[in-house]
Amino acid sequence: MLKFFYASGTCAMAPHIVLEQLGCPHEAVRLDFSRNEQQSPDYLKVNPKARVPALVTERGVITETPALLLYLAQRYPEGGLAPLDDLFVLAQAQAFNSYLCSTVHVAHAHRRRGTRWVDDEAALESMQRRVAQNMTECFDLIERDLLQGPWVLGDRLSICDAYLFTVTQWLPGDSVDVSRFAKVADHQRRMADLPAVQRVKALHA
Amino acid sequence: MLKFFYASGTCAMAPHIVLEQLGCPHEAVRLDFSRNEQQSPDYLKVNPKARVPALVTERGVITETPALLLYLAQRYPEGGLAPLDDLFVLAQAQAFNSYLCSTVHVAHAHRRRGTRWVDDEAALESMQRRVAQNMTECFDLIERDLLQGPWVLGDRLSICDAYLFTVTQWLPGDSVDVSRFAKVADHQRRMADLPAVQRVKALHA
Repeated sequence: MLKFFYASGTCAMAPHIVLEQLGCPHEAVRLDFSRNEQQSPDYLKVNPKARVPALVTERGVITETPALLLYLAQRYPEGGLAPLDDLFVLAQAQAFNSYLCSTVHVAHAHRRRGTRWVDDEAALESMQRRVAQNMTECFDLIERDLLQGPWVLGDRLSICDAYLFTVTQWLPGDSVDVSRFAKVADHQRRMADLPAVQRVKALHA
Repeated sequence: MLKFFYASGTCAMAPHIVLEQLGCPHEAVRLDFSRNEQQSPDYLKVNPKARVPALVTERGVITETPALLLYLAQRYPEGGLAPLDDLFVLAQAQAFNSYLCSTVHVAHAHRRRGTRWVDDEAALESMQRRVAQNMTECFDLIERDLLQGPWVLGDRLSICDAYLFTVTQWLPGDSVDVSRFAKVADHQRRMADLPAVQRVKALHA
């Protein structure tokens, strides 16, 4: 059986939602980052990057959210969670997920994970001061150009929706009011209505 | 015909190498970042993110390096540049590319693109002081765990190699000596021998 490692408040919520939405049998293992469990010798054997998510499959471990999302959609094509039959639309989905991981997640991480990039307290505070503005600019772009509505790719739920919902959950902590983005706020409500999302939110609480 | 936008010194080198390696007909358009051409009204219509790469196809624009790499490999499957017939290996390829875009590229960007995340000079300098250490840690991981050798995925050249070569090119500017990573240095030499890479390097000079 697949074994899925996650932690509360992280982007692991995205593939977790996809696992639940697909009804894919798996064992979910929660790591406690406040106890630094991602740095334990046992977990470093699973993922030497000391991050979540990580999925242990019968052939080996898969890490990195965008990779996991596409893998799950391809492994369970009957779930219809990626436009696998259309290269161009699939590229749009991949571009969306890549933007979330390389720009939006990074903008957010400068609030609490700033020690990845600087050592001193003054620089950490400088970073934190820009997070709300940067996240707002990212979501302005998502609202205006990327989220087709009602779902990211239009009429069909996909892996992109699980990822967008996950990142939207970070906005209050980043001092950004989601209600200023009408389509994103509607997307968040629709996602929150899905039973799979409710199950995952309870696990991540 | 495909139209490809790039700029010197950017990650657009990776899909550019793939376009050349595949022998895919395209028009390459170079933007001059020192003249801020990525912010021109005409280019913002192509890519409102004001970044490269961007590929204009007959159906619309594709952005984000990992998305473009997979799109090109899928569009020209006869080129054999992605393990399209093996979901698990494809996921490893995707995880590799995702790590480069969300962690390694970001570590590098803190040297010259720090104004994305902070406003003041002292914080910019704090960021710059950590770049060599962070890039070294990233390449330690690549050398030890990710690069199978001689190519990223083992015996077969893939989109991951174009991306790794591109990021390796940044190491001298980041004050990291590539020779401390034996497999990466060998990879860089093998890539530099490919005619497609030589053509792209000349265009990006």
